Amino acid sequence: MTSHTAVVLLSGGLDSCVAAAVAREAGDLALLHVNYGQRTSARELSAFEQIANYYGVERKLTVDVDHLRHIGGSSLIDPSLQIPDGAEEVAEVAVPTTYVPFRNGNLLAIAVAWAEALRATAVYIGAHEQESLYPDCTAAFFEAFGEAVSAGTAMKPAITIETPLLSLDKGGIVRLGAELKAPLHLTWSCYQSDEVPCGRCHSCELRRGGFVDAGLPDPAAAPSAPPPGAA
Amino acid sequence: MTSHTAVVLLSGGLDSCVAAAVAREAGDLALLHVNYGQRTSARELSAFEQIANYYGVERKLTVDVDHLRHIGGSSLIDPSLQIPDGAEEVAEVAVPTTYVPFRNGNLLAIAVAWAEALRATAVYIGAHEQESLYPDCTAAFFEAFGEAVSAGTAMKPAITIETPLLSLDKGGIVRLGAELKAPLHLTWSCYQSDEVPCGRCHSCELRRGGFVDAGLPDPAAAPSAPPPGAA
Repeated sequence: MTSHTAVVLLSGGLDSCVAAAVAREAGDLALLHVNYGQRTSARELSAFEQIANYYGVERKLTVDVDHLRHIGGSSLIDPSLQIPDGAEEVAEVAVPTTYVPFRNGNLLAIAVAWAEALRATAVYIGAHEQESLYPDCTAAFFEAFGEAVSAGTAMKPAITIETPLLSLDKGGIVRLGAELKAPLHLTWSCYQSDEVPCGRCHSCELRRGGFVDAGLPDPAAAPSAPPPGAA
Repeated sequence: MTSHTAVVLLSGGLDSCVAAAVAREAGDLALLHVNYGQRTSARELSAFEQIANYYGVERKLTVDVDHLRHIGGSSLIDPSLQIPDGAEEVAEVAVPTTYVPFRNGNLLAIAVAWAEALRATAVYIGAHEQESLYPDCTAAFFEAFGEAVSAGTAMKPAITIETPLLSLDKGGIVRLGAELKAPLHLTWSCYQSDEVPCGRCHSCELRRGGFVDAGLPDPAAAPSAPPPGAA
């Protein structure tokens, strides 16, 4: 048992899995899954549990925050809105409709509360620049939130907010995950489906581009259709 | 209808009621009650509803955040711990056992998400210096959190975090509430009981001191025992 424990916000997606792999290099893991009513929550929770088992982590917490669905303002949590296909459509608006107001502020607040209760020294979140259309995915936000944590918690030295993927693109995240032997085969990225990745939503498109850039096959990609005439 | 709307974190207690009265001076109210598993939550929710009715507010949101109870670390939410009686006992420890880790960080994160969805311009919280043993009740924390909100939300100008009671003592809060005709008779402060205020817990003691300092009777005090021989 090492002396440092990190709380990792682990959605079950590719990015948070790689963030967990980075945190694991520095100490013990405490894994936090927040279900804020996103459409694929059961599938994401399953990925979370599989990744936790892979790392043999016993300190796990799953939190339901229904209120973010009630508050709304986002197609990620409002079934009446359409999920945009691909980056081109997303680029048409300054802030995508998949924006959940102050989502990372809420996720980090929960993670910091748990970290303080556990006497953990850090909170890891897998945010990165390709999401920087979201104002709560920016370096400026994480830095300011870290200051609020330093001022607003009793632990000294203060719990730090760690964003190891912030400056990476999706290809860099895939490469880093592969280097650290992160269980990328257990991760789930699709916003739209909970059985086979749709391959069309923005998250699927980003993931595919990341594996292509990294020159690696996606171990969790949907199986290709068999060639004509195959058994 | 005025052009500004403020989200007010309204527990149903004295302080948050006076914060709502201050916010009301500047615009329309949207009232947010967060139930984080505190022992007197049903009584506090009732006070919240009565205060909302008093002000004729229709934009109300009640949020349950069970996870703060699961995370624990506080006698406010853990029935197995004893509530400390009075200030003397509280002063014995640097941070009282009624501390909920990063409680105000969590409350403000929810309030900011709702404020952005409503296009509200401000979030009001009734924190004040007598609670400054809690690190998330300090001016430094609220200032830093405001910077995180500015960086982490899409609204420009940014939603502000308003702490109109921060530098007041309990007597000053009672006086301000009386001046603004806040419905202090509808507020609930006791940590321990949900029928008649216990009169002994730290919150009851602070409240009593506030009304004494302000030279005003507490309209919600427990009725005194009748004098001997009274009918």
